[in-house]
Amino acid sequence: MDQDALRKLLAAVRSGEVDVEQGLERLRALPFLEIGSHTTIDLHRPLRNGFPEVIYAEGKTPEQVAEIFARMAEHGPVLATRASAETAERVLGACPGACHNPLARTLTIGEEAVAARPGEIAIVTAGTSDLPVAEEARVTCAMFGHPARLISDVGVAGVHRLFHRLDELRGARVVVVVAGMEGALASVVGGLVPQPVIAVPTSVGYGASFHGLSALLGMLTSCAGGVSVVNIDNGFGAACAACRIANLPDSPSE
Amino acid sequence: MDQDALRKLLAAVRSGEVDVEQGLERLRALPFLEIGSHTTIDLHRPLRNGFPEVIYAEGKTPEQVAEIFARMAEHGPVLATRASAETAERVLGACPGACHNPLARTLTIGEEAVAARPGEIAIVTAGTSDLPVAEEARVTCAMFGHPARLISDVGVAGVHRLFHRLDELRGARVVVVVAGMEGALASVVGGLVPQPVIAVPTSVGYGASFHGLSALLGMLTSCAGGVSVVNIDNGFGAACAACRIANLPDSPSE
Amino acid sequence: MDQDALRKLLAAVRSGEVDVEQGLERLRALPFLEIGSHTTIDLHRPLRNGFPEVIYAEGKTPEQVAEIFARMAEHGPVLATRASAETAERVLGACPGACHNPLARTLTIGEEAVAARPGEIAIVTAGTSDLPVAEEARVTCAMFGHPARLISDVGVAGVHRLFHRLDELRGARVVVVVAGMEGALASVVGGLVPQPVIAVPTSVGYGASFHGLSALLGMLTSCAGGVSVVNIDNGFGAACAACRIANLPDSPSE
Amino acid sequence: MDQDALRKLLAAVRSGEVDVEQGLERLRALPFLEIGSHTTIDLHRPLRNGFPEVIYAEGKTPEQVAEIFARMAEHGPVLATRASAETAERVLGACPGACHNPLARTLTIGEEAVAARPGEIAIVTAGTSDLPVAEEARVTCAMFGHPARLISDVGVAGVHRLFHRLDELRGARVVVVVAGMEGALASVVGGLVPQPVIAVPTSVGYGASFHGLSALLGMLTSCAGGVSVVNIDNGFGAACAACRIANLPDSPSE
Amino acid sequence: MDQDALRKLLAAVRSGEVDVEQGLERLRALPFLEIGSHTTIDLHRPLRNGFPEVIYAEGKTPEQVAEIFARMAEHGPVLATRASAETAERVLGACPGACHNPLARTLTIGEEAVAARPGEIAIVTAGTSDLPVAEEARVTCAMFGHPARLISDVGVAGVHRLFHRLDELRGARVVVVVAGMEGALASVVGGLVPQPVIAVPTSVGYGASFHGLSALLGMLTSCAGGVSVVNIDNGFGAACAACRIANLPDSPSE
Amino acid sequence: MDQDALRKLLAAVRSGEVDVEQGLERLRALPFLEIGSHTTIDLHRPLRNGFPEVIYAEGKTPEQVAEIFARMAEHGPVLATRASAETAERVLGACPGACHNPLARTLTIGEEAVAARPGEIAIVTAGTSDLPVAEEARVTCAMFGHPARLISDVGVAGVHRLFHRLDELRGARVVVVVAGMEGALASVVGGLVPQPVIAVPTSVGYGASFHGLSALLGMLTSCAGGVSVVNIDNGFGAACAACRIANLPDSPSE
Amino acid sequence: MDQDALRKLLAAVRSGEVDVEQGLERLRALPFLEIGSHTTIDLHRPLRNGFPEVIYAEGKTPEQVAEIFARMAEHGPVLATRASAETAERVLGACPGACHNPLARTLTIGEEAVAARPGEIAIVTAGTSDLPVAEEARVTCAMFGHPARLISDVGVAGVHRLFHRLDELRGARVVVVVAGMEGALASVVGGLVPQPVIAVPTSVGYGASFHGLSALLGMLTSCAGGVSVVNIDNGFGAACAACRIANLPDSPSE
Amino acid sequence: MDQDALRKLLAAVRSGEVDVEQGLERLRALPFLEIGSHTTIDLHRPLRNGFPEVIYAEGKTPEQVAEIFARMAEHGPVLATRASAETAERVLGACPGACHNPLARTLTIGEEAVAARPGEIAIVTAGTSDLPVAEEARVTCAMFGHPARLISDVGVAGVHRLFHRLDELRGARVVVVVAGMEGALASVVGGLVPQPVIAVPTSVGYGASFHGLSALLGMLTSCAGGVSVVNIDNGFGAACAACRIANLPDSPSE
Repeated sequence: MDQDALRKLLAAVRSGEVDVEQGLERLRALPFLEIGSHTTIDLHRPLRNGFPEVIYAEGKTPEQVAEIFARMAEHGPVLATRASAETAERVLGACPGACHNPLARTLTIGEEAVAARPGEIAIVTAGTSDLPVAEEARVTCAMFGHPARLISDVGVAGVHRLFHRLDELRGARVVVVVAGMEGALASVVGGLVPQPVIAVPTSVGYGASFHGLSALLGMLTSCAGGVSVVNIDNGFGAACAACRIANLPDSPSE
Repeated sequence: MDQDALRKLLAAVRSGEVDVEQGLERLRALPFLEIGSHTTIDLHRPLRNGFPEVIYAEGKTPEQVAEIFARMAEHGPVLATRASAETAERVLGACPGACHNPLARTLTIGEEAVAARPGEIAIVTAGTSDLPVAEEARVTCAMFGHPARLISDVGVAGVHRLFHRLDELRGARVVVVVAGMEGALASVVGGLVPQPVIAVPTSVGYGASFHGLSALLGMLTSCAGGVSVVNIDNGFGAACAACRIANLPDSPSE
Repeated sequence: MDQDALRKLLAAVRSGEVDVEQGLERLRALPFLEIGSHTTIDLHRPLRNGFPEVIYAEGKTPEQVAEIFARMAEHGPVLATRASAETAERVLGACPGACHNPLARTLTIGEEAVAARPGEIAIVTAGTSDLPVAEEARVTCAMFGHPARLISDVGVAGVHRLFHRLDELRGARVVVVVAGMEGALASVVGGLVPQPVIAVPTSVGYGASFHGLSALLGMLTSCAGGVSVVNIDNGFGAACAACRIANLPDSPSE
Repeated sequence: MDQDALRKLLAAVRSGEVDVEQGLERLRALPFLEIGSHTTIDLHRPLRNGFPEVIYAEGKTPEQVAEIFARMAEHGPVLATRASAETAERVLGACPGACHNPLARTLTIGEEAVAARPGEIAIVTAGTSDLPVAEEARVTCAMFGHPARLISDVGVAGVHRLFHRLDELRGARVVVVVAGMEGALASVVGGLVPQPVIAVPTSVGYGASFHGLSALLGMLTSCAGGVSVVNIDNGFGAACAACRIANLPDSPSE
Repeated sequence: MDQDALRKLLAAVRSGEVDVEQGLERLRALPFLEIGSHTTIDLHRPLRNGFPEVIYAEGKTPEQVAEIFARMAEHGPVLATRASAETAERVLGACPGACHNPLARTLTIGEEAVAARPGEIAIVTAGTSDLPVAEEARVTCAMFGHPARLISDVGVAGVHRLFHRLDELRGARVVVVVAGMEGALASVVGGLVPQPVIAVPTSVGYGASFHGLSALLGMLTSCAGGVSVVNIDNGFGAACAACRIANLPDSPSE
Repeated sequence: MDQDALRKLLAAVRSGEVDVEQGLERLRALPFLEIGSHTTIDLHRPLRNGFPEVIYAEGKTPEQVAEIFARMAEHGPVLATRASAETAERVLGACPGACHNPLARTLTIGEEAVAARPGEIAIVTAGTSDLPVAEEARVTCAMFGHPARLISDVGVAGVHRLFHRLDELRGARVVVVVAGMEGALASVVGGLVPQPVIAVPTSVGYGASFHGLSALLGMLTSCAGGVSVVNIDNGFGAACAACRIANLPDSPSE
Repeated sequence: MDQDALRKLLAAVRSGEVDVEQGLERLRALPFLEIGSHTTIDLHRPLRNGFPEVIYAEGKTPEQVAEIFARMAEHGPVLATRASAETAERVLGACPGACHNPLARTLTIGEEAVAARPGEIAIVTAGTSDLPVAEEARVTCAMFGHPARLISDVGVAGVHRLFHRLDELRGARVVVVVAGMEGALASVVGGLVPQPVIAVPTSVGYGASFHGLSALLGMLTSCAGGVSVVNIDNGFGAACAACRIANLPDSPSE
Repeated sequence: MDQDALRKLLAAVRSGEVDVEQGLERLRALPFLEIGSHTTIDLHRPLRNGFPEVIYAEGKTPEQVAEIFARMAEHGPVLATRASAETAERVLGACPGACHNPLARTLTIGEEAVAARPGEIAIVTAGTSDLPVAEEARVTCAMFGHPARLISDVGVAGVHRLFHRLDELRGARVVVVVAGMEGALASVVGGLVPQPVIAVPTSVGYGASFHGLSALLGMLTSCAGGVSVVNIDNGFGAACAACRIANLPDSPSE
């Protein structure tokens, strides 16, 4: 499509419909939206990698988030992650229709406009303390059109709990494993199912868990082949990776 | 299927066809193969997660690898990774039909028996020094039935080289990005294509690259949403992750 | 016992007492208890590894802890660790009979039902600042039926204090050593007594103690053979390890 | 000049204008100013390395900062960095003419006395969350006589945003790149422009970004040759490095 | 016993059988043996902590090891660990009756003099590459009187292999788990058996396994309560810890 | 002296003045003082290593510190370090004569009883932000009988400030260098003076100073031979090391 | 210039001189050169960032380096860094006119074609052991047209050696400081001269120098404002950074 | 003395005996000696910090070491550390009178010219494997005029061995403690003696000893006040620190 747009533009220059300086200008007129001097929203990102730009609220002032959120909400559904209570309050003030999920720390609007495809992504947690990360993943999947099934508290210290839920896991198209401490659940799941497994280390734990480093290293060095990993506590990223997979069209040869 | 096997076994016990002690025995007769006292080959792994067990040659003696390789070769195609020259020599002595790829450090046999599906996985490297890891990924994909296209030396220090190959990237079902040093290529690719992106940090670099740590951290913290990561230099794991995706059946609703 | 249960179930299927679908169902009816969508309590864990499931309160909301605590209290004694003051208040509201130890940060109920075996575990601290961790260990031992003797503030900067208490150490069946900073007490105790020694590094210290890393590494590399180590500040884990030992039955040959 | 001062002093000793003990004394009378017992202001630093001494407010009490700021303000323009709100209040009380920039956390006075040379330094950020660091750099450049152009939120996840601003970058004499997470923007900019590039990793991110370590390592191992790096979040230092370059006189041969 | 010896010495001084200076001398005459100027063998260590002193050969010259080994062999059984081929050759030259195990890298003599108690310690490995460490543990147990059962290659990537061997595990008095990569086997075993579990991380793996750090952290942060850990690759230390437990006399009350 | 006490005791046993059981008892009656169950004060430590036991207040409750402080104050001068404001308040309530230095975070009593030897220790800081650590060192030296001279804010960014104070440095018997950031001052001082130099890294700095790690590593790897180092921010330890030196008696041969 | 090329192309399309498909083709015909399947040489890089692409020989086979070197030598001067003796031999075989500097580990050809501008860059080393890195920098500067002056072995342990060479330093346009161990030389130089200072940490040292990490951290946290840093042992990168500065045209306003 | 030299020079300028330009020249004529372009020997260092410059052989070619050694040997006694066998051979070729100690890896000449003061420094090692570091310290002390007493293999796993040697320790003026693994010996010694204690961590150990890091951290965080630490394996630095102390003149007041 970029290709096509380029070809059309060149054809228009060729035909004289667009002159050289205009052509030059249009090549520059790339699809983003500047807000004040601080933010450059990338509206055409869906065309490039399948996702809308999402607001990462941490490190931005509540005012900045509210301004960006409101501007983006004029163009379609919006998701903000890592939103503090203060930021949520400010955004809800600016966009009364927005929804705040305090466990997931997300702010969303327009999710009702997203057409869902049912039952494809399973999100599994090792313990109850991993829920905020799993919930961030679940909300993100929902905003990207992929409702996810949550299977909670089935860590390996009592591995039979996992076996009990194996059918549910096997029915999913992608499995997201969320675990802190040593993160061994990712290896066990990776050894049990043939689907893509995305592992999310969490910062649950203390001491030698080093804020999630231990789980991260454990997942990266998993003895189960083909488990891939995202950043610590990155429920959002895992959901993106899962949706990139779930979004794949059926294979062309079939 | 495990489920089915269990149901059939129970039915056989029920019918008296199989008595209780035999039933107990069969439940134990799980599908692996012990070699000497040192190795337990997991022959039914394909039934569980889609891949044959692969021999990780590092840390095993050449004799152990040769013995395991030969025994497994009686059951089907075999892949050994991280094989030293000495191990390769020993394996080729035991299995003259095996193939040694010294750049990838792999040993394979029976790949001709693997039915291939063309053109679905793209493997991109930042530099020529990343080739051994990319090659390990390529051989692994081939052994798992997914021939991969290699796009080499298109790192971000000259980002136009990447843009030149963008169509090839966009034609793939999964993209594996192999990069050392700061690993920025993963972020740039992740921002340009909507498909699943598996990033492999390599130990290419020196000093503050800390044997691949720098690329690993960079890929984990990528600003492009949905890039997932495998271990440093783990071309094999990236290929497994890519094949888990490429193996997905078409979605049931279609 | 799992074995026996399985054999009995198969016999019942065999005899027709239990039909195939019921058999399938029972194999699934594993012994845990789901609470809401967030928690899966593993009630039969004592049958597997000798301990009840314990609530790790950190990272759970006070409401979640109170709900889990109350539900588990219906089944037997309960221990919760790492409980904040706020969580304690909430649990005491839900279970007025529970006991809160603020130094140890534990919540317990039903300890009077635990039959005790006296004097088998010694808990030694290097300094007064290590007491919270030692106290967590002591409470845990008590809940698991093993009252422990606490020997406090006998670190190696004044090694004669330790020698003064040596007889008490030698009278114990297991010794738990709790120390921060450089953790040298573990090596000295390990060199002086023949019993099992479980070392707990604490986060006491500053600067290059790196929140307990220094003590952890020191204990792992102890020149005294046979000192084993648990996570930083993990009084609970050390107590579990000690109780695993203290729980051992007398040797079969005698 | 030091050289000249020394020669003059020796000549004065030679002529008897200055006696030996006086000469000894003058050699000692180096150009700094002691404040109380805690601080030794280095007033002649501009003569040595081109910059005034700047107050690093972190780790100093508000009272100390206010005293030093006031004393230095008697000698010329003053810049304080890393000033907390409390420190700012105290300084503004002592020096009502001072200016507080809360985003940059700077306090300044006398900037109107600094003669500016326009348009030479470009400061580029990957995201809106990097603004505080970029703003510290911008204020510092201004105080050192080099107004800077800020180009914000052009990170590599949407690399076309950067290309859109390339002309502005190419018009600058020095480019400062401010980025957190994986910091890939530094490599991409370093590959696109021939000017000096100073990279500033920021602590924006979480988990495996390890408070900026990930961006730092990524920038240090950049595949683009000649990118140099300053400390994490060190907008001040990047500005100093940029001004050292911008201050260079024209080359002698021309 | 130290106590008794002291009491006897004091009584002898009291009776005049030993005079004061002699008493002073005897208090000094502690039970060790100096070899040259470099080594102080601690012959009475068995009286203190149950084990003979063992020679750690790494970092000693082959000559030093041979000299110490020969001198100690005059007093009883000897074990040397981490012996290189060169050291082994030298020791076998000096003590022709010694036995070299190249996989375990041990040298032993006098093991036939050690009375064995059968079947109490189980040593489990995740993979074949973990065998050298497991073998060091096995040899050490044997030298300390506790023959151990080796269960090899039952890692969690195929968790059913472990379940197949569960009865053997449950029959042991202590379980030593030897695993590299992410070390998840320790958590799974710890959740399945009630006995003491000693975990040994190995340096098997590459990249983010960081020479065993990943497995070490994973085992320290295990979600299974009461798993204790020794140093990376420290098969010797795990055996010592296991033998400290296996050596425990039956409880006094029975 | 320990030797002497032992000899006297043995002589008393010999003479019948003390019987065997009493002798045993006295050997045990070592010089410490137990407070409650939590603390074992080592009153005779001055006899062993020249310093009184000092209270490290961090990690102890204000109540514990106040109790220990009051009990020790009955025996002589007392020093408590790392005392919070809350702890100070509690101690001053219990011991109205105590003195609180909030910059140094110390509590002291009885310093007037310490006979001072003037002018032997110099404490040098790189910057004003290093003062709290330097002040802890100064107070500790004073309590141990060695008033120290403080030379502040002479870091290497303006190295002439240091040269100006060189005579003062050279007049000291020991030099303590307190510096954060890169800690280069220790190397420069170590290259300029022949006396013992004790370096104290401080946590002053941010980003890649990693809470003092950067200064610590820099001081440990100093190119100036014979600089020794204490823990980060450990003004107390540096003072102890300095006083160990300053306490040395004149050499015996003179 | 890219701009101009684009404008010309569009004009040619406009005029019909180039048709649409040709235009599309030319936009793709970007200036690089593919060698085999492994390398994509970026011939127009000088147009973008002022430097030719340089061959980083580490991680490439000698054959690959020789092939790339020879192909690039057809287009102009070539520099290869990190060349082993074996690689050098292979390259000299393929390109007899090439020059091998074994201390710097460089291979060069065509340097006589580079027009030099004298005396602008000073390279200072702390010790003789830092020479290989300094030499890599010197050769790189020469290949980029900027002969550099080498000032060796003037580290801060004897700071007067540096002062002796201060005039030479002050005469340079850019100063590159090469130092291992604690790297303090960068701070001292940065405090003494007003020019741009590029610091190169080296891996000289042992123990806590952690292969250059200590020097790296020290340079990043330098108390001298405006010192920027490149990777450990990266003499090449420092030279690139220095040449980016030295290449700057005189300022437009003059 | 520098002071005196300066005063004399100024007086000479004053008197006309030396003219201004000559004075300038002499101020520059600082006492070092340049060798080729690579080394600047600091001959007057003894006047500044009491030690001759010592050759750190690692990272220098054998030729460089031999040249520097020979040149320095013309001026007085010489010490080279970290000398490989190859370097030793080259130096002995150039200076037949030099002495090579292969355990300590030192080369020395002229030690017979150093007047010794007996018995002041004790060097204690934890194990035989620590001897090379201890020996480097011993040789260095000898070259600096302070013969040292070596007490070997008295680590804390058998702490009574240390007590046996306590009188020797107490008779020393300074104690150097050399220990690897967890380095606990430093804490125990520091708690037992009142003298200055210099701790040297060694790289003896494996796994979590991380090449000496564990011992280093343990020594830095020692609970015994006033233990100061040098770099890992830095026997030379510890000897320098000890000699700085042993060199102190008697206190002025006595």
